[in-house]
Amino acid sequence: MNLKIAILSGDGIGPEVTLQAKKALYAIGVVYNHEFIFEDAYIGAIAIEKTGKPLPDQTLNLCRNTDSILFGAIGDPKYDNDPSAKVRPEQGLLKLRKELGLYANIRPIKAYPKLMGSSPIKKEVLQGTDFVVYRELNGGMYFGEKKTNEAGTYASDLCEYNEDEIAKIAHLAFKAAQSRRKKVTLVDKANVLETSRLWRRVVSEIAKEYPEVTLECLYVDNAAMQIIVNPRQFDILLTDNLFGDILSDEASVISGSIGLMSSASIGDTHSLFEPIHGCYTEAKDKNIANPIASILSVALLLEHFGLTQEAKKVIGAVEKAILSNVVTVDLKVDSQFGTNEVGDFIANYI
Amino acid sequence: MNLKIAILSGDGIGPEVTLQAKKALYAIGVVYNHEFIFEDAYIGAIAIEKTGKPLPDQTLNLCRNTDSILFGAIGDPKYDNDPSAKVRPEQGLLKLRKELGLYANIRPIKAYPKLMGSSPIKKEVLQGTDFVVYRELNGGMYFGEKKTNEAGTYASDLCEYNEDEIAKIAHLAFKAAQSRRKKVTLVDKANVLETSRLWRRVVSEIAKEYPEVTLECLYVDNAAMQIIVNPRQFDILLTDNLFGDILSDEASVISGSIGLMSSASIGDTHSLFEPIHGCYTEAKDKNIANPIASILSVALLLEHFGLTQEAKKVIGAVEKAILSNVVTVDLKVDSQFGTNEVGDFIANYI
Ligand SMILES: CC(C)[C@H](C(=O)O)[C@@H](O)C(=O)O
Ligand SMILES: CC(C)[C@H](C(=O)O)[C@@H](O)C(=O)O
Repeated sequence: MNLKIAILSGDGIGPEVTLQAKKALYAIGVVYNHEFIFEDAYIGAIAIEKTGKPLPDQTLNLCRNTDSILFGAIGDPKYDNDPSAKVRPEQGLLKLRKELGLYANIRPIKAYPKLMGSSPIKKEVLQGTDFVVYRELNGGMYFGEKKTNEAGTYASDLCEYNEDEIAKIAHLAFKAAQSRRKKVTLVDKANVLETSRLWRRVVSEIAKEYPEVTLECLYVDNAAMQIIVNPRQFDILLTDNLFGDILSDEASVISGSIGLMSSASIGDTHSLFEPIHGCYTEAKDKNIANPIASILSVALLLEHFGLTQEAKKVIGAVEKAILSNVVTVDLKVDSQFGTNEVGDFIANYI
Repeated sequence: MNLKIAILSGDGIGPEVTLQAKKALYAIGVVYNHEFIFEDAYIGAIAIEKTGKPLPDQTLNLCRNTDSILFGAIGDPKYDNDPSAKVRPEQGLLKLRKELGLYANIRPIKAYPKLMGSSPIKKEVLQGTDFVVYRELNGGMYFGEKKTNEAGTYASDLCEYNEDEIAKIAHLAFKAAQSRRKKVTLVDKANVLETSRLWRRVVSEIAKEYPEVTLECLYVDNAAMQIIVNPRQFDILLTDNLFGDILSDEASVISGSIGLMSSASIGDTHSLFEPIHGCYTEAKDKNIANPIASILSVALLLEHFGLTQEAKKVIGAVEKAILSNVVTVDLKVDSQFGTNEVGDFIANYI
């Protein structure tokens, strides 16, 4: 296979972990005889620094014309405490998601037997947990109109949804459930929010087209509790943009480390793969960031293009690294291995 | 002391657990020679049934003219899956919070040594956890304008905040921190939301008036993770209405059972105390609901009126019940004690 892949490594630890992902993908290309062409481009704080824009036109054009995107991380603390900043790194990622129509963010959540020790949750609770979060990525509070008054004493954010936006991701979620344990849990706040009631109506109607799949509805406050109390109950967890942001980060505690979690952002024509940890600026350039999430996002990419064998190979190499204790300090406090060493081990093993 | 207390027991298990709270409060009155006058009134689904309104005028008037309110629970599943329902039980509670200016919802989160076994989280992680959530209760997405189009294919919710709403609860939070471990953690989504950036600015300014208190800011997705990974880091967690709803329910897993958690809703002139579990309709009238959260809300009420000794007495009686294994099935699977028996034990002990 021939794939052209845009590399948007971004800010913080993004570049160093994405480098390891590239190594792994390159190794897969060599072993399985695929041609992967990488093209790097700026996004986020680094793009603002270089071009004044968090998503330069050149980057967007590149992404439009590649087969897929490997993304690193975005953000810089210096923008966080400056409410008056008009240009922010995160706008780059949000605009990219919107422009490319990446409407579904898919995050697999799994308890790894070998890593249960590093999860804050008890083993009995974790055992057998295996679900996937389907988070809507193009709508909701993220993209509704934002307002402030001149005095800066008032602010508002609008949360909007329409039927089509909900239907699109709902179909994806039900299809995924069909080939899994056949259950979709819709998470909303339908006792308070109008948008949630729309979600409930649309999703309940779509559910009728998938009679073998069971639909359950859960309030978001209850869901935030259930994810910790009884995570095994979930198969596909379907939710909106903001709730998905919160719940999928929360659910990452199940796997033992957020440094292991990756996600796919999917649209009708484009796709993007990324680790879910953020820019983690404190760790930048210290060779301590865990590259596994980024490397596992390569597995999601390969899977997406039907390269199942190759995806398995990547996952196998990651498991080998974990079993051999070739991991970063977040997984083993006294480890002498850094970002680079773990990346090299995995690429070599492939 | 002389206190007139409105009893709004509401729906589901509300009436049966509130009855136990009344028993405990009555016992305190006898022992310490206080006069507590109780007046019952309807709210929620039961109020809709009886009067057509989730918050009848009579109930609101009563609440305006009492010293405090003991609240049970609200909600009925039959409204949840009916997006067209114009009148909903929850509106009663939301209106009450707004009309009485109950702008701060305060939820203490504590790991009880005796109950760590029933928490899904590991003991090492829980140990020493002791923080309080300050959730803004009169603004945000709960009260902003809600819209739908005629075709029912579009919906929106507006999240709004102004400086004063934020300042009010922020001062309460900083004052609380002063007499605790002197740390406030503001949880927001300032990298995306305009309202969050307003929160950050207002709270950062107020922080200057409390130089001995440290302010930390955390994104809500990260906070949802940190509450499980490292709950000891929190002292006062300050956040908006919607994030507070999600995070405080999530944090309830720390104490071992949501059936133990109570909260205070405070305004300048009124106060309301309630268990945080919901209506739990499946358990209604089965004598299995845990009354402890409701009874502990009595302790919060007593504390609020400066009756510290009396509050301690209630907490002591609850602890005695737990130590004696006089608890409901959520805390001990094979327990033969029901809601009533636990309530009687606690009242008698007082
Ligand atoms: C960086 C930020 C804008 C982003 C989001 O909130 O969507 C991140 O938290 C994520 O989940 O991908
Ligand atoms: C019943 C519901 C409207 C309410 C809320 O969301 O505020 C409840 O979940 C709570 O936290 O008190």
